[in-house]
Amino acid sequence: MEKRVVVIGTGNVATHLTEALLSAGLPVAMLFSRTPRHAAEAGQRFQLPYTSDWSELPSDAGYYIYSVSDTALPEVLERKLAPEAIHLHTAGSIGMDVFGATKPRHGVLYPLQTFSKNKALNFKDVPLFIEASSPEVLGELNQLASLLSTKVRTISTAQRRQLHLAAVYACNFVNHLYALSAELIRQEDIPFEVLLPLITETAAKVKEMAPMEAQTGPAVRNDKTVMRQQMEWIDDLHIRELYRLLSESIVRLTKSND
Amino acid sequence: MEKRVVVIGTGNVATHLTEALLSAGLPVAMLFSRTPRHAAEAGQRFQLPYTSDWSELPSDAGYYIYSVSDTALPEVLERKLAPEAIHLHTAGSIGMDVFGATKPRHGVLYPLQTFSKNKALNFKDVPLFIEASSPEVLGELNQLASLLSTKVRTISTAQRRQLHLAAVYACNFVNHLYALSAELIRQEDIPFEVLLPLITETAAKVKEMAPMEAQTGPAVRNDKTVMRQQMEWIDDLHIRELYRLLSESIVRLTKSND
Repeated sequence: MEKRVVVIGTGNVATHLTEALLSAGLPVAMLFSRTPRHAAEAGQRFQLPYTSDWSELPSDAGYYIYSVSDTALPEVLERKLAPEAIHLHTAGSIGMDVFGATKPRHGVLYPLQTFSKNKALNFKDVPLFIEASSPEVLGELNQLASLLSTKVRTISTAQRRQLHLAAVYACNFVNHLYALSAELIRQEDIPFEVLLPLITETAAKVKEMAPMEAQTGPAVRNDKTVMRQQMEWIDDLHIRELYRLLSESIVRLTKSND
Repeated sequence: MEKRVVVIGTGNVATHLTEALLSAGLPVAMLFSRTPRHAAEAGQRFQLPYTSDWSELPSDAGYYIYSVSDTALPEVLERKLAPEAIHLHTAGSIGMDVFGATKPRHGVLYPLQTFSKNKALNFKDVPLFIEASSPEVLGELNQLASLLSTKVRTISTAQRRQLHLAAVYACNFVNHLYALSAELIRQEDIPFEVLLPLITETAAKVKEMAPMEAQTGPAVRNDKTVMRQQMEWIDDLHIRELYRLLSESIVRLTKSND
């Protein structure tokens, strides 16, 4: 595994991926961002060559990993570049047809995790979901992915899309509920920290029991008195509407599983 | 601290509270439930005297802790019982006026945590929020609470209500989103376990940064292409409506903090 890797993109995913590649001892040939400042920052962070000029990218690397926004991806892939190499994207919701005919050896390396540049994490524990244009490319991709993480799994585009969607609920929306709860107690001068044991335990419980079994609170008891009262205490119309809809959803799911 | 404690209620909170009282070496005189079977189960679980008959309750205990549903609480407190003792409830949303004139020494012992009977946890880490009818009762309650947990804090009824409301978002609604994400991937034969590293990291991040900073995903980037596409992939109308409302709420909160 001495093929060199080029990483295109310098966002949260690209940053953690670059770190994982280096930790695994893989040669990262160059980092790319369309924005010169971002390219320079990434290059300095990792002490690696960087560019924002397509013509400066090496054409003889083994892997080109495109970790850019879903919107930018099709445009970025229009560049004719290293037709022999393996080209990979990291997006949850985008199929393999995005690569087109000029990049016949391609695949997807989708890490199921929430990445922020300044929050360290152990990439070895990040589930990596792979898909490739041929069994031969899949074999190579599997080797590469297994150097980065102990949790590699082959899935279809349809499965990956659904997984990405589930991640929006289990991570992005969950984090937003943390943000709203912080807002709610800030009004009463209570610091967010007091909620941390509850947040930790809520996440820990579903390691031991299914989420349906772990459900507590007024809605799962269908306690209309508490729900009505709590809704009255919410000043913000938008937050109140979320209370109503989420409570209804809990009541509905509980009934359908009775 | 040799005053005996009577626990009224045998639900999730009462069960963990009884265990915490015993772990702290406090004498629990009796357990009560209106439902004879529940009383017997609790008594057997802890090897303690139990009853479902009000007249059998000791009248000379030091503390009577009422850990019953919000709906049952006013009715339960109508019983004339031990006017000298300290009477406590454990509800997040109920004020102290519920105790009435026959129980002049009273207060609230509100544990901010999600309890399921069969999920063990360390009660010493559970934040306990207390409130009492007088400084003298507050002092006694503070002593009691400090034997159970290292995190005891005095707050007002208004603060406790808001805290309970925040807990509904940070715990009950969060757990429901875990349940929905499990549903979403079950359709594609993916086990819930693959989401656990993401769930754990999402909860861990907010120990190091504010939830607003930790936010990732399509909505915080206001990536309308991904959001529109993902909504199209959701078959269930109810789950789709939650996607729309939660995404809008993220966009709104992000803008208001820009």
